[in-house]
Amino acid sequence: MNRPVHGGNLAWAAELASCSPSAILDFSASISPLGPPQSAIAAIQNNLALVREYPDPDYGQLRRAIAKTHQLPSEWVLPGNGAAELLTWACWDLAKLDETQVLTPGFSDYFRALSTFDAKVSRCPFDFARVEEQGIEPDLLNLASSMPSSAVKTQARSAGLLLNNPHNPTGQLFSRASILSCLDEFSLVVLDEAFMDFLPPDRQQSLIEDVQRHPNLVILRSLTKFYSLPGLRLGYAIAHPDYLKVWQTRRDPWSVNILASVAAEAMLLDTEFQQFQQQTWDWLQSAKPKLFSGLAALPGLCPYPSAANFFLVRSQQSVPEIQQRLLKQHQILIRDCLSFPELGDRYFRIAVRSESENQRLIAGLTDIL
Amino acid sequence: MNRPVHGGNLAWAAELASCSPSAILDFSASISPLGPPQSAIAAIQNNLALVREYPDPDYGQLRRAIAKTHQLPSEWVLPGNGAAELLTWACWDLAKLDETQVLTPGFSDYFRALSTFDAKVSRCPFDFARVEEQGIEPDLLNLASSMPSSAVKTQARSAGLLLNNPHNPTGQLFSRASILSCLDEFSLVVLDEAFMDFLPPDRQQSLIEDVQRHPNLVILRSLTKFYSLPGLRLGYAIAHPDYLKVWQTRRDPWSVNILASVAAEAMLLDTEFQQFQQQTWDWLQSAKPKLFSGLAALPGLCPYPSAANFFLVRSQQSVPEIQQRLLKQHQILIRDCLSFPELGDRYFRIAVRSESENQRLIAGLTDIL
Repeated sequence: MNRPVHGGNLAWAAELASCSPSAILDFSASISPLGPPQSAIAAIQNNLALVREYPDPDYGQLRRAIAKTHQLPSEWVLPGNGAAELLTWACWDLAKLDETQVLTPGFSDYFRALSTFDAKVSRCPFDFARVEEQGIEPDLLNLASSMPSSAVKTQARSAGLLLNNPHNPTGQLFSRASILSCLDEFSLVVLDEAFMDFLPPDRQQSLIEDVQRHPNLVILRSLTKFYSLPGLRLGYAIAHPDYLKVWQTRRDPWSVNILASVAAEAMLLDTEFQQFQQQTWDWLQSAKPKLFSGLAALPGLCPYPSAANFFLVRSQQSVPEIQQRLLKQHQILIRDCLSFPELGDRYFRIAVRSESENQRLIAGLTDIL
Repeated sequence: MNRPVHGGNLAWAAELASCSPSAILDFSASISPLGPPQSAIAAIQNNLALVREYPDPDYGQLRRAIAKTHQLPSEWVLPGNGAAELLTWACWDLAKLDETQVLTPGFSDYFRALSTFDAKVSRCPFDFARVEEQGIEPDLLNLASSMPSSAVKTQARSAGLLLNNPHNPTGQLFSRASILSCLDEFSLVVLDEAFMDFLPPDRQQSLIEDVQRHPNLVILRSLTKFYSLPGLRLGYAIAHPDYLKVWQTRRDPWSVNILASVAAEAMLLDTEFQQFQQQTWDWLQSAKPKLFSGLAALPGLCPYPSAANFFLVRSQQSVPEIQQRLLKQHQILIRDCLSFPELGDRYFRIAVRSESENQRLIAGLTDIL
């Protein structure tokens, strides 16, 4: 089996660890350990008969449920077969521009989707270590204008920006103001907020409330990470209806399966929805600093502070070696960063899990290092 | 709500009929009334915990299960989020050719997927009424060469063929030999066999056994029609691994949701799989001729013989009117053919359902006509 380019590949890990996939303790996929909400599972159980029906190609109920959580008209929302499907169509729009700037290290699926449509990509090195050491706020426009072919400098070429906030894999958070200032400089900004939910509301830097004022802003959101539903595939885009209508004419008519659709509707409209969110924020507030200090105390490891539910960790030892030993000796899977060429073999990324599971990781690393 | 372009749109029908979607008796989607197999539902129920995991991006187990049913190596199989997703990527390959020939009337999603990638489409009128009246076997190459810009005639331009067999919406079956002869004439043949399962094995005209000898042949299959799982979204392509590998680099990494994946694996490997197939063939052999003669006996209706699980019916009266009255007075939904421009408002398509449901349709039509 080839080395996976994404986290969460339990089939690959189980083969290496010589155990069943369910025996793997997976720190490689940045999924909440608390979910899924009971309401989502109950909705699937109670609606199994719906597998006999086509989904509504307009996904009217689902759009309204999502739109309600953001106080938006439903035509500004489009559900997709995971945010990854919507990323594909967004990258087609980016590919029509003269160039698209992407921070590096960057999520490998961005490069997949951009190269699908032969987009011209400008890799924009993000000096996250310096940002961290000097305590400065990452300034996106400065980053962008450091690029040799920058559209920001020349103003002559049409340029797009594909960015995640919080940033993956570093966990850095860009301020809403710094992204807003990019909207004047770029023809199209595709903003992936897949991990924004993990911040408590007073710390979020989402641009959802700005989308109706900025027709060149497309926001991608995931319902699979915060709500632990990656197997169902469910994400959504928030953007001007003109964009979303075009995507609907491009893609297949029933892109979201009906069980994902009813699970999301039930979950978003559930009276305990806010309670579930609060539990997640509470867990993260407690578990994250302990995991961080546990990692920082280990010899040769340096975790970077993160706004999300994962940490990027620098390692003095070769990570593929640590990864193999953790798998074989402890059935623990961490995310190597070989798919981020700028990071190489001295970095890994881990999700924050429950406190006892985090302890198991620290114990496993202590054993190995 | 806009008039739907596909069958199975219960949200639209329920609004017109002033009832709940579940109260609609749906003849518009050509789905087997017997399924889904118990093994598929049980697999979903027993594996709900898997929604917390990402699907295996290689879909190894699922590919092997599908490949086994066709005695093919698994790298010749690629599962998709419904056949519709795979159609999208196949149409991108067709769009690189000078033209793609499509029989008309043709499934509207073909034109959606072809226009997504700006494919040059040659509409090739299919005189299904003449084929029927004169009892001749449809000769695909004759049909193709009747086109003014035919690649078959000139040999100078690269041409593709996008065809379904049995043909939708007419239900006509092309012989394997006649499609095989097209493989020498076209650079790429995309053959949609979504309804081929409904024929008993001795009458099927599938080209699956030919695919390893013809690198320019792509076959699309559906697991949602014969197995009544349209809500789950599951189809697959059978083609040379080089095609399928390219599609995998284009599309998002986890296109098939994990519940669809486990349901299909369980169903295909189930010991009662062949029994389920046999039951479906038995039901169709009994129900189909009765429904046909029931329709033919009604004033102003002329059903066309069909190899599939649906009938195209010509009507002397306006079909949208019949459709509305059936919905409002009997909560029965038939598929108008307005989305097939060549057919207009004097044709409808209906699925074969259980014998008692077919009786309800005949009674409803008798009441109205």
